[in-house]
Amino acid sequence: MTDTQSPDSSPAAAGFHSIDAHSGAVVGAAFPTHGPNDVAAACAAAEAAFDVYRATDNEARATFLERIGEEIVALGDALIVTAMRESGLPRARLEGERGRTVGQLKLFAGVVRRGGWMGVRIDPAQPDRAPLPRPDLRLRMIPLGPVAVFGASNFPLAFSTAGGDTASALAAGATVVVKGHPAHPATGALVAGAIDAAVAACGLPKGLFSHLVGPGNDLGSALVQDPRIAAVGFTGSRAGGLALVKLAQARAVPIPVYAEMSSVNPVVLMPEALKARGAAIGTAFVGSLTMGAGQFCTNPGLVVAIDGEGLDAFVASAATAMADAAAATMLTGGIHAAYEQGVAALAGHADVKTIAQGKVGEGVAQGQAAFFETTAQQFLADKALGHEVFGAASLLVRCADETELHAVLRDAEGQLTATIQMDAGDTDAAARLIPLLERKAGRILANGWPTGVEVTHAMVHGGPFPATSDGRTTSVGSLAIDRFLRPVSYQNLATALLPAVLRDGTDAPRLIDGVAVQ
Amino acid sequence: MTDTQSPDSSPAAAGFHSIDAHSGAVVGAAFPTHGPNDVAAACAAAEAAFDVYRATDNEARATFLERIGEEIVALGDALIVTAMRESGLPRARLEGERGRTVGQLKLFAGVVRRGGWMGVRIDPAQPDRAPLPRPDLRLRMIPLGPVAVFGASNFPLAFSTAGGDTASALAAGATVVVKGHPAHPATGALVAGAIDAAVAACGLPKGLFSHLVGPGNDLGSALVQDPRIAAVGFTGSRAGGLALVKLAQARAVPIPVYAEMSSVNPVVLMPEALKARGAAIGTAFVGSLTMGAGQFCTNPGLVVAIDGEGLDAFVASAATAMADAAAATMLTGGIHAAYEQGVAALAGHADVKTIAQGKVGEGVAQGQAAFFETTAQQFLADKALGHEVFGAASLLVRCADETELHAVLRDAEGQLTATIQMDAGDTDAAARLIPLLERKAGRILANGWPTGVEVTHAMVHGGPFPATSDGRTTSVGSLAIDRFLRPVSYQNLATALLPAVLRDGTDAPRLIDGVAVQ
Repeated sequence: MTDTQSPDSSPAAAGFHSIDAHSGAVVGAAFPTHGPNDVAAACAAAEAAFDVYRATDNEARATFLERIGEEIVALGDALIVTAMRESGLPRARLEGERGRTVGQLKLFAGVVRRGGWMGVRIDPAQPDRAPLPRPDLRLRMIPLGPVAVFGASNFPLAFSTAGGDTASALAAGATVVVKGHPAHPATGALVAGAIDAAVAACGLPKGLFSHLVGPGNDLGSALVQDPRIAAVGFTGSRAGGLALVKLAQARAVPIPVYAEMSSVNPVVLMPEALKARGAAIGTAFVGSLTMGAGQFCTNPGLVVAIDGEGLDAFVASAATAMADAAAATMLTGGIHAAYEQGVAALAGHADVKTIAQGKVGEGVAQGQAAFFETTAQQFLADKALGHEVFGAASLLVRCADETELHAVLRDAEGQLTATIQMDAGDTDAAARLIPLLERKAGRILANGWPTGVEVTHAMVHGGPFPATSDGRTTSVGSLAIDRFLRPVSYQNLATALLPAVLRDGTDAPRLIDGVAVQ
Repeated sequence: MTDTQSPDSSPAAAGFHSIDAHSGAVVGAAFPTHGPNDVAAACAAAEAAFDVYRATDNEARATFLERIGEEIVALGDALIVTAMRESGLPRARLEGERGRTVGQLKLFAGVVRRGGWMGVRIDPAQPDRAPLPRPDLRLRMIPLGPVAVFGASNFPLAFSTAGGDTASALAAGATVVVKGHPAHPATGALVAGAIDAAVAACGLPKGLFSHLVGPGNDLGSALVQDPRIAAVGFTGSRAGGLALVKLAQARAVPIPVYAEMSSVNPVVLMPEALKARGAAIGTAFVGSLTMGAGQFCTNPGLVVAIDGEGLDAFVASAATAMADAAAATMLTGGIHAAYEQGVAALAGHADVKTIAQGKVGEGVAQGQAAFFETTAQQFLADKALGHEVFGAASLLVRCADETELHAVLRDAEGQLTATIQMDAGDTDAAARLIPLLERKAGRILANGWPTGVEVTHAMVHGGPFPATSDGRTTSVGSLAIDRFLRPVSYQNLATALLPAVLRDGTDAPRLIDGVAVQ
């Protein structure tokens, strides 16, 4: 759809520009701003293409996913250079992100080919059962319908136009309308072109993918409210996610919204680990905190530990490392302004002490790292201290003992991740923490940092509210595909009417009377 | 919890009674009415028991589910007699329903033992991967937290106190607070006692199950709003379900509501089938419609067919069968009054013709069957004609051709079921219908009637809104367990900290790097 849409004639359609994140300067001609008519056209096309696309077999769909990856690679260095300019992120990071985006498409292609995603279940008829015969029942998963995807600013490739939400929706057999993030319209247009090329190369209906762009919230609101849209994928702010959830729930037919929103990702420093290597943990912590200007959903924004000498060593080392940390260009002026505001609120809080700050930057939108501390009692007294400040800021909560440490974690909101820094001597205390952390977070990790999010089968990038709007799901890893599926049961249907994967002799992974057959 | 709760001192606590459905007479002493303090106590107990209960191994949990079934059977004929009196349903139906309730617990016990419900995924570490090593990632499903279950009036055993929602939540490892349906408090008390006995016999924490009763909506509202409740299961009216959804979404931490609400279960009569056996289909249709006084969620409340001689034969035969159909005692006076109102609205509708009515009953709350007809154009012009009338009433929509038939089905709301009556000569036309029906219904069946709902692995008793509030799920069959689960990923955790089912050497069904291993 991307190449055929003409800008809408609505008043909002004044056009907007690609901005150089480093200089704040406008680059190139204005982008067309899509409006309500474009939303309607894209949704109609997605609906029209839905039955055709979902009827593709697993091989065809897997090939399509792989082809998208190939087309993205074929964009060459222009994609990297454009994304660097629009996001302010460095080359190595964006090259890695491109690899991740392509790898994700390949991983999902493998899942589609293996077929477990179809969730096939067959309960054969029992004609002789008394008092009544049992009918033949066969179940498979089908896609929900056309999916709206909101590109995220902080991963202009891996969480945007052809990112995890798009890839998992396409893998599920859903058609997709992307609302591209206005912070990287040129990057989005390149990637959308790659998807369009893959659609054409695979002989699939053009309408299965559309890419809409524009500033402001009207475009996204119209998209979520379109009756043809059946689900929404979003990564962004808590306010943005909650606004979409509200719109989706107010529809005549409410739809699921998978919004990945807000998390401070508590890192628990256990006593023995602090004693043995408090200083080393402090240095590594600042490395994780400042990576990518701290603009990760899984950034370690909260550190929780029991007071003592080990903790002092950690703090001293973290302060030293932070004093050396260079400022970094943030994604947009707006994100930078919000970060500055969040940091100022912590710095000015009566119960919060500033431990250290990073170097001041030169140029626009320079994010300066910051590390603060407070006590468990003070933290528990003010819910606002547990809120995310998006960027390289973190808050240490000093606890008097294990009871306070548990109280702080129990009081915390839902999180994407919870990290334990521990040594062997901490095992018993860590075991007491695990049941609590399982209730709070989608991923629990030991002796690492939450900022690395692997795209695999066992990854959960999700978690209880408000980390996401639906804690039963993940937006990273192959389990993300399941978000866009629903079960349909077929009872006593003639073979000719059954989907091919449910017919006798199917080779799909399946349960027969509840027992797994590969 | 059932036996220890004392009635609340709130003003609502006036007590209420078991009512004989046949006579409308009060039976026995007043039941205590539970109030806000009881809700808080039950939820606190469910939360306190949660970590203990979810930590049980699969064998212990399966044994507990089976024990509940045994305790229900041990209640003997007292349960059947009590349920007959409170529901007005006949003995054979309730004995069948008891068998279904116990069979469901056994089925779920089998699923729990096999362990597929845990969704284990293991992606082993790749220490030598370049540029960065891959961590060890292991995923399992855990229960969401304490679950609130609302008993349904129309299945006083299979969808009530120990019904599908309770059984699936317990199978998932969730603790449960049941809000018993006020139409059968004595039946509910007996079943709650059986669950309590199973809890005690299995040495499980008492608080894992509570049973609260009372008239009105305050009790249920308080339960859904309690911050310790993590999910809700409900079967009942559309208004009731939507009210609970609204409460759940307005919480500080919103929670999922699985409400099975409203469906007219379209039955499509295909031309060749009508020609060959229109009269026989008419008789069978009335049998399905009037079963259990029509008080099934899957009752065939909408018949759609193309006009012609075959359809006339169907109508004539259905009219004859209905004229002979005895009235039947409905579940409650309130349900009967709503049914009468719905029937009167159809009978008085300018565009609706009455085909036939069943016999008038003698006594209280006698549901008289009714069959109406309208045209496709008239049906499409008035959305209200597509709404459920709970009871033995159905509406035939006469279509001029296949185009109109498709238009009627496309316009229909989401449904639990869609039925096709067809012969071999209808196969091509039926094939054109399937993609449309898949978008509308959770279960598609051929040459049967939707009122039979098997409890198996491939059953879907669910469907797009407003059939349910969450079309991604089913409330019948083993897939219902998944509603109460969420994934947690464990990264680089020492063996001692990993859940047993995720340790090396686990025998759980699992994906290793995405490939299934049994």
